[in-house]
Amino acid sequence: MNVLLVFAHPEPKSLNGSLKDFMVQRMEKSGHQVQVSDLYAMQWKAVLDANDNIAKQEGERFDPSQNSQQAFYNNTQSADIACEQEKLRWADAVILQFPLWWFSMPAILKGWVERVYAYGFAYGVGEHSDKHWGNRYGEGNLAGKRAMLVVTTGGWESHYNARGINGPINDILFPIQHGILFYPGFDVLPPYIIYRTGRVDEDAFAQACDELGERLDNLWVTQPIAFRKQNNGDYDIPALTLRADILPGQSGLSIHEYEI
Amino acid sequence: MNVLLVFAHPEPKSLNGSLKDFMVQRMEKSGHQVQVSDLYAMQWKAVLDANDNIAKQEGERFDPSQNSQQAFYNNTQSADIACEQEKLRWADAVILQFPLWWFSMPAILKGWVERVYAYGFAYGVGEHSDKHWGNRYGEGNLAGKRAMLVVTTGGWESHYNARGINGPINDILFPIQHGILFYPGFDVLPPYIIYRTGRVDEDAFAQACDELGERLDNLWVTQPIAFRKQNNGDYDIPALTLRADILPGQSGLSIHEYEI
Repeated sequence: MNVLLVFAHPEPKSLNGSLKDFMVQRMEKSGHQVQVSDLYAMQWKAVLDANDNIAKQEGERFDPSQNSQQAFYNNTQSADIACEQEKLRWADAVILQFPLWWFSMPAILKGWVERVYAYGFAYGVGEHSDKHWGNRYGEGNLAGKRAMLVVTTGGWESHYNARGINGPINDILFPIQHGILFYPGFDVLPPYIIYRTGRVDEDAFAQACDELGERLDNLWVTQPIAFRKQNNGDYDIPALTLRADILPGQSGLSIHEYEI
Repeated sequence: MNVLLVFAHPEPKSLNGSLKDFMVQRMEKSGHQVQVSDLYAMQWKAVLDANDNIAKQEGERFDPSQNSQQAFYNNTQSADIACEQEKLRWADAVILQFPLWWFSMPAILKGWVERVYAYGFAYGVGEHSDKHWGNRYGEGNLAGKRAMLVVTTGGWESHYNARGINGPINDILFPIQHGILFYPGFDVLPPYIIYRTGRVDEDAFAQACDELGERLDNLWVTQPIAFRKQNNGDYDIPALTLRADILPGQSGLSIHEYEI
């Protein structure tokens, strides 16, 4: 299978750098093809702007969505964007690996999402009707592919548990796992998280590699997070609120998963 | 009072650009001093890297936190970072204004947070003991200042309500409001959100200005979101989980607000 690893850490000799090297080796040893988008090494342009469309004319009012749509359909996207989209088309699975900085992904990776996720590619696709509100949340051009986060954080696991002060890790990651990955169609696997990075010695690193290696070996069989599909009848359209008879009276992020 | 407006939209003639101009006028008319950090216009460097410390030596292993701490204490931060910190010290209130891109702030603004929020400035401050886990979440160098988000999104309000498919807007914004603003000490005011931006005509814009103008007029008296302070006795330290006798059995993001 083909795996795209999008890696967002500035230091190759960091814990994240070592984990990245381990993952590539492990997956290649298992016979997979791996491509790495090492965003810092590539000096990835993080900032979405009018230059992302090479046909953009001077003096126009810049509309990010419209510019993206025109560039995508007219083949005038800047080369770095088109190249990453090609990698996504090629991939059967995508891994986003990053340190949690201020409770989200590093800016360089956020900018990868913003620029590569073009209108017509990752959003703005599919019919809009009173039964179907675009191909998104479980449908879309990336449907059939799998995605997983590999995240490190200095905080303790308890700080991110159900009652931890930082918020439950799955809630903190919801905008990424549901909003960035499930939205264009990915099946999203549970994340692999390493906590308390300041204390990761050789033993802890070896243990992390064991766990992560197992996660990689099971990449194709692991049950994805059971996010509800938008157009499967669970949501009222166009309000896109969960039907009143499903988990009545409940709210919050977890209602957007099927009850198992 | 002094207000810092951090603005993250690439197009001055956009809805966001017009709102920004309106806000500056309204606040200046009320006698406030306003500084605007217009990140796109400033060509803000979005990517945190070793160059953020001008004393950084070639060949060293780059540790983002350590590099930030050394630069902060040795006065070797790059000038753009020091300048933004000075604006934050000057400000009585900070407004972050941005379009919601992929359920979070644009990369350029995330990179502003990552680079300006130095170790020793926005984190890594205060004593660590079994009663006090650093000055954070309600304490810190930015305590006593107010902060507010002004956010636009193409989606409908119902898509972001308690049962909306995107997740409740306050949950989506929790990593920013709690994790980025409350963490270093800000009192966080309820956000001002404009939904369905594609449909904002002249009337809707006038209405938004009325509402937002009122929010600005009340910036100094509006009740902040009642996030629980970390070191006030509500959390077990060092686990930093909410005490078992507070909202027993409950979980999720909303438990981190005081019951009113």
